[in-house]
Amino acid sequence: MKYGKSLFLAAALALLASCGSKDNIIRTRIPARPAGQEDAVALRVAPLDTVRVGFIGLGMRGPGAVERFCYLDRTRIVALCDVLPENVEASRQILLRHGRPDAAAYSGSEDAWKALCERDDINLVYIATDWKTHAPMALYAMEHGKHVTIEVPAATSLDEIWALINMAESKRLHCMMLENCVYDFFELTTLNMAQKGVFGDIIHAEGAYNHCLDEFWDRYWNSWRLDFNAAHKGDIYPTHGLGPVCQVLNIHRGDRMKTLVAMETRSVVGKKLWAKRGHNPSEFQNGDETMTMIETEKGNTILIEHDVMTPRPYNRMYQVVGTEGYASKYPIQIYSLHPERQEGVVSHENLNAHRPVSKEVMQAMQEKYRSPILTPELEALAKEVGGHGGMDFIMDYRLVYCLLNGLPLDMDVYDLAEWCCLGELGAISIANGGAPVEVPDFTRGAWNRIDGYNYAFAE
Amino acid sequence: MKYGKSLFLAAALALLASCGSKDNIIRTRIPARPAGQEDAVALRVAPLDTVRVGFIGLGMRGPGAVERFCYLDRTRIVALCDVLPENVEASRQILLRHGRPDAAAYSGSEDAWKALCERDDINLVYIATDWKTHAPMALYAMEHGKHVTIEVPAATSLDEIWALINMAESKRLHCMMLENCVYDFFELTTLNMAQKGVFGDIIHAEGAYNHCLDEFWDRYWNSWRLDFNAAHKGDIYPTHGLGPVCQVLNIHRGDRMKTLVAMETRSVVGKKLWAKRGHNPSEFQNGDETMTMIETEKGNTILIEHDVMTPRPYNRMYQVVGTEGYASKYPIQIYSLHPERQEGVVSHENLNAHRPVSKEVMQAMQEKYRSPILTPELEALAKEVGGHGGMDFIMDYRLVYCLLNGLPLDMDVYDLAEWCCLGELGAISIANGGAPVEVPDFTRGAWNRIDGYNYAFAE
Repeated sequence: MKYGKSLFLAAALALLASCGSKDNIIRTRIPARPAGQEDAVALRVAPLDTVRVGFIGLGMRGPGAVERFCYLDRTRIVALCDVLPENVEASRQILLRHGRPDAAAYSGSEDAWKALCERDDINLVYIATDWKTHAPMALYAMEHGKHVTIEVPAATSLDEIWALINMAESKRLHCMMLENCVYDFFELTTLNMAQKGVFGDIIHAEGAYNHCLDEFWDRYWNSWRLDFNAAHKGDIYPTHGLGPVCQVLNIHRGDRMKTLVAMETRSVVGKKLWAKRGHNPSEFQNGDETMTMIETEKGNTILIEHDVMTPRPYNRMYQVVGTEGYASKYPIQIYSLHPERQEGVVSHENLNAHRPVSKEVMQAMQEKYRSPILTPELEALAKEVGGHGGMDFIMDYRLVYCLLNGLPLDMDVYDLAEWCCLGELGAISIANGGAPVEVPDFTRGAWNRIDGYNYAFAE
Repeated sequence: MKYGKSLFLAAALALLASCGSKDNIIRTRIPARPAGQEDAVALRVAPLDTVRVGFIGLGMRGPGAVERFCYLDRTRIVALCDVLPENVEASRQILLRHGRPDAAAYSGSEDAWKALCERDDINLVYIATDWKTHAPMALYAMEHGKHVTIEVPAATSLDEIWALINMAESKRLHCMMLENCVYDFFELTTLNMAQKGVFGDIIHAEGAYNHCLDEFWDRYWNSWRLDFNAAHKGDIYPTHGLGPVCQVLNIHRGDRMKTLVAMETRSVVGKKLWAKRGHNPSEFQNGDETMTMIETEKGNTILIEHDVMTPRPYNRMYQVVGTEGYASKYPIQIYSLHPERQEGVVSHENLNAHRPVSKEVMQAMQEKYRSPILTPELEALAKEVGGHGGMDFIMDYRLVYCLLNGLPLDMDVYDLAEWCCLGELGAISIANGGAPVEVPDFTRGAWNRIDGYNYAFAE
């Protein structure tokens, strides 16, 4: 009798556990912060005399970064590393062309980068390798006392995200994702306008990575990028879309992402690509298009899309919806303002609330609300140096500026976490029929400490 | 002992029941089809000699419809009804201006429309009243043997949807929603292109009703439209966005909507409007912006947005994503095709897969893929008669044409159901933290009988 009742009780408890959360929301495990460790929100460390950088990964994004650093004062390119020696050689030629001292070369094996991280004459490791090596390399570099800056997406799983957070927090080191799209001109200006209240209360923002990669797949060493798409569901490349959105919504600076839901289409183009390479198409995981909807603590919403398969015009879908105004970047740049907000910009115009402002008004607004980080001199230099029209240079410029001046970087490790988490969290939602999934508070309690996003400046 | 065990068992079963569906999806009740009743997919009834119509609702949409019918042969406007006698008078003047016989007038009470429905010299009742009266009037008219055509949204709840379906099925009467946006020129052409395979496999489509109504709220009799927004969550006005999307995705003609998830923003503008009218703002239900994501049986996805509050440019967000092409209407019309699809259109051009086609190519495509329902003569007449640029006239023209010829209408009662169901289903999702909600098979088993959307034509 007693045995039977215990069995029954155990079964009932198992049933209860299997039903999951009573409120339908799926929650992932949030590791407890180790004792004595503090958060690294807007981390500030001692200024550097010189930014002494080692580059790992000189295939696609790396060489451009090496080139850009050649324009930045008080930097020293100490070491260069790539699996392929010819890539290291090409970057050494860049240094030569710019009259920079030669750099130590690391190559010839998939482990050569470790010795670079162990050098004692480097304070920054710049990682531009394939996605799977991003987190392992960054962790190793931080273990050896280096600040790290990592190409997107910096982390490909929640485990990697939490590992990077814990390492950055415990070591008090910068761990910044190289999200360039937040530095594009329209995004910089629009953020400033939003912060000045031009759009009223921001309630909704959108972003995407809709970029057909059919001409690119073969350019990635060992086909690592297509392989990753084949192996994963969810939005695996969300940062270009999410970055500007999270900044304008003050994520972990007064608001935070609360729950998300993801849906994907079937895979048609992806499967064809996979079959053409001799694989079994039914293995291909990533749907041709993925959508993720996110709700924030303050009751705002976010939409992020991902489509690297279909032949459509490039579109990062940046859109800001406010109670008194609207901004949209693709396919054409639009601002739309409530009439009461339009005074003082061009007051003589008869402005319709619901039409986009004219080109003249837009130009006037963009001058009036020039981003505080974008002096005309920096803008001119950025456009000359280039890199996606200048945004890459502004990104590297701000990174170096903040490191030299001992300031918080424009993006901290929690931005990295928030902008990368859509992959795994979205895959969980998709696997559960579009169930809502909690977005962890990656700051573990500090998301509301800072009142609004801002850039740091030296006195 | 026995009593204790029964109690325990009952508790365990209650727990099991309260956990809901094991797969996280919330399902609404699908009423069983009454015995002997059959579905009305692509319903066909005997041709009419003359379309003898009674109009109910002559405030905003009604008079334009009366005017358009004056251009349609073999129609007779038999009766006119509105709560306000002056509205009836104004429509009688329209008839006079067009040399049409006078119509019987019904007015002066909120029940006057019933007598119109009871007339035995009417075969169509055209309903353009406030949303809450749509379904009750349509049911009454069908009970009295009339075909009905109803302004959007035709139904405001699942109960109303099922009641309309059951009545239409049992009476074998047409019950068509007056969704005009499927007849706009870009939508007609794009649908034809999609059906001819120009975009490859369609995997994703989008639509929206993003239209700031701040200048309109006061024009609705008794403030019925703002009142409805105040009382309901979810996308309560989804049909303009969903109509073209569902046609291009062959909904209940080979595919069907399976589950949806909805999220809304907080209400900021809505609450302000409500407070300005002397109400308690915390009562206001509808979020300023609502998003709904839908997954179909075939693995395609849909995104629908709703924002009638913020000052943004008008945008129905019509977008079609295919494996070999792309179409988007707002803010500018775009087609983008895979190079292999561009031959035979303008073959001498060097066409880039990922740029929008040029204006010249677009015009050539729009001529080549002219909609089969849009003869140049009809197009010219539609543009002359007007009504949102012509789409309203094409809608009424096709309705009358199909009735006179005994053909299935372009939209059946299941389109009405599918395009209206987002309100209540979305509200359920929102109330459950963004949980996935099943979209019922409103055809109750017939969603896969017809192979692809098509228009009917007389021999």
